[in-house]
Amino acid sequence: MKNTKLQAFIPLLYIVWSDDLLTEKEFATLHDFINLQDWLSPEEKQELFSQITITNPPSRGEITDWKTKIEQTIQENLDIKSIFEIAVALSENDAVIKNLEYVFIQLENDLGILGEETIGNFKTKVKTYTVTHHTNASFDVQKITNILDGAQAPIINKVKAIISRPEFKYETTTDIGVYREKVYDWCKILAQENLGNMANPKKYGGGENIADYFAIMETLSYHDLSLVIKFGVQFGLWGMSVQSLGTEKHYAKYLHDIGSLKLPGCFAMTETLHGSNVKGLETTATYHQENQTFTIHTPHEKAQKEYIGNAALHGQMATVFAKLIIAGHDYGVNAFIVPLRDENGFILKGVTIGDCGHKMGLNGVDNGTIRFDEVVIPKENMLDRFASVNDKGEFESSIPSDNRRFFTMLGTLVGGRIGIPRSALAAAKSGLAIAIKYSDQRRQFGPEGGSEVPILNYRMHQRRLLIPLAKTYAVHFALQYLTQRFLTKKEAEMQEIEALAAGLKSYSTWSTTAILQECREACGGKGYLSENRIDALKNDTEIYTTFEGDNTVLMQLVAKNRLSEFRKSFGEMGSLGIINYVYENAKSALSEKNPIVTRKTDEEHLLDSAFHLQAFQHREKTILAAAAKRIKKLIDSGLEAYDAFNVVQHQMIDLAEAYLERVVLEQFQVAIEVVQDEKSKAILTKLNQLHALSQIEKNKSWYLEDGYMEAVKTKAIRKMVNQLCWDIRPDAVALVNAFAIPDSCLSAPIAV
Amino acid sequence: MKNTKLQAFIPLLYIVWSDDLLTEKEFATLHDFINLQDWLSPEEKQELFSQITITNPPSRGEITDWKTKIEQTIQENLDIKSIFEIAVALSENDAVIKNLEYVFIQLENDLGILGEETIGNFKTKVKTYTVTHHTNASFDVQKITNILDGAQAPIINKVKAIISRPEFKYETTTDIGVYREKVYDWCKILAQENLGNMANPKKYGGGENIADYFAIMETLSYHDLSLVIKFGVQFGLWGMSVQSLGTEKHYAKYLHDIGSLKLPGCFAMTETLHGSNVKGLETTATYHQENQTFTIHTPHEKAQKEYIGNAALHGQMATVFAKLIIAGHDYGVNAFIVPLRDENGFILKGVTIGDCGHKMGLNGVDNGTIRFDEVVIPKENMLDRFASVNDKGEFESSIPSDNRRFFTMLGTLVGGRIGIPRSALAAAKSGLAIAIKYSDQRRQFGPEGGSEVPILNYRMHQRRLLIPLAKTYAVHFALQYLTQRFLTKKEAEMQEIEALAAGLKSYSTWSTTAILQECREACGGKGYLSENRIDALKNDTEIYTTFEGDNTVLMQLVAKNRLSEFRKSFGEMGSLGIINYVYENAKSALSEKNPIVTRKTDEEHLLDSAFHLQAFQHREKTILAAAAKRIKKLIDSGLEAYDAFNVVQHQMIDLAEAYLERVVLEQFQVAIEVVQDEKSKAILTKLNQLHALSQIEKNKSWYLEDGYMEAVKTKAIRKMVNQLCWDIRPDAVALVNAFAIPDSCLSAPIAV
Repeated sequence: MKNTKLQAFIPLLYIVWSDDLLTEKEFATLHDFINLQDWLSPEEKQELFSQITITNPPSRGEITDWKTKIEQTIQENLDIKSIFEIAVALSENDAVIKNLEYVFIQLENDLGILGEETIGNFKTKVKTYTVTHHTNASFDVQKITNILDGAQAPIINKVKAIISRPEFKYETTTDIGVYREKVYDWCKILAQENLGNMANPKKYGGGENIADYFAIMETLSYHDLSLVIKFGVQFGLWGMSVQSLGTEKHYAKYLHDIGSLKLPGCFAMTETLHGSNVKGLETTATYHQENQTFTIHTPHEKAQKEYIGNAALHGQMATVFAKLIIAGHDYGVNAFIVPLRDENGFILKGVTIGDCGHKMGLNGVDNGTIRFDEVVIPKENMLDRFASVNDKGEFESSIPSDNRRFFTMLGTLVGGRIGIPRSALAAAKSGLAIAIKYSDQRRQFGPEGGSEVPILNYRMHQRRLLIPLAKTYAVHFALQYLTQRFLTKKEAEMQEIEALAAGLKSYSTWSTTAILQECREACGGKGYLSENRIDALKNDTEIYTTFEGDNTVLMQLVAKNRLSEFRKSFGEMGSLGIINYVYENAKSALSEKNPIVTRKTDEEHLLDSAFHLQAFQHREKTILAAAAKRIKKLIDSGLEAYDAFNVVQHQMIDLAEAYLERVVLEQFQVAIEVVQDEKSKAILTKLNQLHALSQIEKNKSWYLEDGYMEAVKTKAIRKMVNQLCWDIRPDAVALVNAFAIPDSCLSAPIAV
Repeated sequence: MKNTKLQAFIPLLYIVWSDDLLTEKEFATLHDFINLQDWLSPEEKQELFSQITITNPPSRGEITDWKTKIEQTIQENLDIKSIFEIAVALSENDAVIKNLEYVFIQLENDLGILGEETIGNFKTKVKTYTVTHHTNASFDVQKITNILDGAQAPIINKVKAIISRPEFKYETTTDIGVYREKVYDWCKILAQENLGNMANPKKYGGGENIADYFAIMETLSYHDLSLVIKFGVQFGLWGMSVQSLGTEKHYAKYLHDIGSLKLPGCFAMTETLHGSNVKGLETTATYHQENQTFTIHTPHEKAQKEYIGNAALHGQMATVFAKLIIAGHDYGVNAFIVPLRDENGFILKGVTIGDCGHKMGLNGVDNGTIRFDEVVIPKENMLDRFASVNDKGEFESSIPSDNRRFFTMLGTLVGGRIGIPRSALAAAKSGLAIAIKYSDQRRQFGPEGGSEVPILNYRMHQRRLLIPLAKTYAVHFALQYLTQRFLTKKEAEMQEIEALAAGLKSYSTWSTTAILQECREACGGKGYLSENRIDALKNDTEIYTTFEGDNTVLMQLVAKNRLSEFRKSFGEMGSLGIINYVYENAKSALSEKNPIVTRKTDEEHLLDSAFHLQAFQHREKTILAAAAKRIKKLIDSGLEAYDAFNVVQHQMIDLAEAYLERVVLEQFQVAIEVVQDEKSKAILTKLNQLHALSQIEKNKSWYLEDGYMEAVKTKAIRKMVNQLCWDIRPDAVALVNAFAIPDSCLSAPIAV
């Protein structure tokens, strides 16, 4: 093909014969095109036709030759942006060709060629900026670790040192019998290290340090999650139930042995038919004045205790929740210590233990069922802090209402709703550390002729992992806040703190479930291999959204608490309260809702923490008032309250979520406020901006419906989220390193 | 308390002492209130104060007495709606009290009492409509089953009969060695039943029935998913690779033995460093003309084949994808049959097999790694349908481009992207059957005094399970459509069908992952027990979003295909095409976008299938044009195409999703169109309405940003979604029964 005019066809011919995007139909397109060009002679046309005969493809040599010519042309002129420009160059700037831009581009379109993309494929050494983005920390990792660990750093480091010892090497057996014993052995080591009695009073050999107890739970969660739950069952549920519901006589008798694990025990509340609705428990504890005993009894098979940790193998006693019956009268649910096994592990008469068998995860925990057939226990075994039977055999309680007493009892156990979300947080950190480190190293695809690119450079991958990373940092500070509130609680704050704990338990555990899902997918096939631990993290935490209170049920409790607080705070305005509130809120939102603000998209505004908090607060308040109004309206229209709450169930979840999102954002902001180190502050601020804007993006339909933002602004927020992901990417590995998870715990070969 | 005036305080006193929502603070509130009431004498005040002394609570007898009085009052006047009305009645309509509505309600507000809700608690026999909603099928289950099974009913029933046999009892061992052998044994039974060779040509003993082959894959998925994958590896991947990439000599030699499972084999494509980007595979097949052989070699450890099914234990041969090297020249990736083990299962010289070990799921499949150390195979072992080495030792191919040839080869294997989403669909059906049947029986909570309510009556629970149920029906018909398109494909349609398969593979598998997550949570603790099978369903399908092509990567391929089709279809308009298209689209959308339509919320309109399709189409078209414009703009601004595509990656996923959502909706509508039976048609129509509106609800931020809908309409859609869930709930159990999953497969004790 010496004819320079014909040289112009080289790029198209090359693409036709090499690009996998073209079919027979396109060959026909090319044929018709050539036919129509009157500036080509019949001979020239014939020569071109000979190049596109399907039955007689060009030789490989010819194709290679075309490719070389194209590549040379591009290298001689790196500004070339279109196939047409290559054609012109190859035709040696033929005057006729130069005027044919329109028809050539039309042809490209007809052939469905993405011209610019194709050009990229010819550049042998493409320097794209996607390729060159890489890990490059902007801050001192240790300083962020210090901020995260805070005052608990000593106990955290102690626990990390213990779980990094050789005897804590992961157990990889699939035999749940072996696994359960291993976890039990680990628990014994922790007890020997005085970690089990950390929350117990000093008087009974304990550390009397609840803050450290929670830090232990969280840090242990970097290791095996069955271990954490087994640990939590023994020291948290069993131990705390004795401590919170019992009195001195129980403390003296049991706490020391519980803290040392000499007396393994259970927390036996849930029954087959009653999990969320524990008020409806059916196990009975019938009092007999004649011999000062209770008979514990399971009235029918489905009233058995179920999912009870430590029950299937190791528990020697249990705190059993049962309806107290005295002289035929039901005094509601109370708690009793009931022996299950003797010291040698033999099951006692009247007790029937079942094994829950293999579970989706947490197979190192021996969950079981317990049935009681007229089991007699002495009167002193009633945990009698809130209620007791007096010498005359009469029921006594400082809280006369059965309901209220029961919920007071449950309230003392709220610690579980702090330990579990903190454990979930640690699991999310582990998953993100594995997935982000792998994604920084794993390369796949790249510009043609360039090297493959770390998958963390891909925008979707960044959204997948860095938005969760920002959220995990946010949740960290929210759970620190919850812990502080719990540690310094006053009587009058208890309801608020209980609601906050219930809410953050749901928020954190749902977040972990979603994050670990992303981590698994982000690691592809490697994420599916058990050796890389996302398997265990995901399956072990899967039940976190259910136990310690089903998340959906808890969220409704949170919502009811918000509604109740709301009514109280506007009580003085009488029944007009809500309407006034809505009006006031609308008025105060007016400045935020004027067109200049609803359409404001400049960077400074979008990144402004005051804007973020206002947006979150506005959403929370508006949803709260709307839900209150709607419930009132439904009931006024004749609906039973029960039905009305069911109708708005979806809104109730939104309400609780908006409240929690505001708290989480606020506490992240508060935490950043006090950071001294500038570089630490800068990266945490960036993370918080990403967190805030990604949450607004998630809720943007609400903001659009409400009119708080217009489309131009929500679209700008989406772009800003992408930009922040891109900006944070070089710091991503350092941000997961700051979790300071022991290598032996992380363990995944892909995260080394 | 004989004083009738004081009787008015009974409800508040009762609530204060019994309701668990009140604290010390509220006692103070009550105290102040009493103090302020000048219509009470000092003595009356004193009497009331005596009733609210914290240190001296009323006796239980007194509380019971109050409660009885309140209940009697309500029963005598069922219209009572407020606590104040009870107070008035108890005061025997005292004239003073009757005028105190405002202050009493103010007090209720101050105490945070939800008056209407509290009243409900006193009604001992509340007839709420939430309680009375129950299962009540509106259609003939068998008729829906017939519609779902269609022409494949005979093979589906045959497979169901086989997997219901005693020898297919589930294997519950956690020993993966035992499990793998069991799955292998099951495969042998299926092969004996002539199911393995269903897709093979009749000439080689096959059934030559691809439609039945896919139905087998889907139906087997009701049983063990390891079995399906093992089956798919042997007959789909290994068998189909020989059939699609080989020629007569290979068919004659291998197909019979593959179909009978006499010759177990592997499909060895993925390498450690190359999973998604298979063009970059590094295994080499070097040709030696002197002895007409290829040497298969793994150049370094990370170029080993990985995750290969059948490799760790049973595979005797493998289709190995490797770069063909002739005389130092690289001819791109081609496929070769390479023996791995002899007939007795001993691994051959030069082959090193690793075991992928324990995985998150699918542990009945023996995935392994394969390394080749200079393994020599005869020339005839090259699968030479698309390329070969001629007698002179030269490379020959009807497709000169290495790239294009490779993608043509891959294109012939598209069947895997039909089998996997259909398997995923079956898993979603199983999960929904278990969760919906359980939720219909499981009762928890209820109105005070009423019986507990099936949890499927709760609105959130309905959203959780019934929206996925509607989606699963929709996906069913979409995958039927995909299968039909594949079976009747013409050369010119291949690219579209490949993109459709890649897209629906992602759509269906992501959908299954999300649905099984909801099912697990919806079943609470029961969903965590392995015996209820959500464990296996969830963990086995977890990798479906990764294998047969990572979903995120596939979605980008789909998006690129849409962009390419888009450019082609507007090619004749030249570079102005896009702009014109956008203009045209805007014009045609004008009628849909006028304020009357964007705000239209009447039921007829919201349920109108034409409205649904228009909304989906509008979204698809608009996103497509916007993405094309944005990419052009980015490249025009100087970005490399590679970078530009990275910047819009998020939009590319949206684009693919919008396309798939439109196809899924459309095919559900088309399928309903031809249903004859009126009752079947009615319930399917309702499901499709729920599906359509829930998808619009999911995408509502887009519709609001675009201006296609206004807030009033998106809010109405949310309500309609809730209403449709409520309306479909009585049919929910029948709708999962219509899947006709064998009881022995469903197996979960909670779904009996």
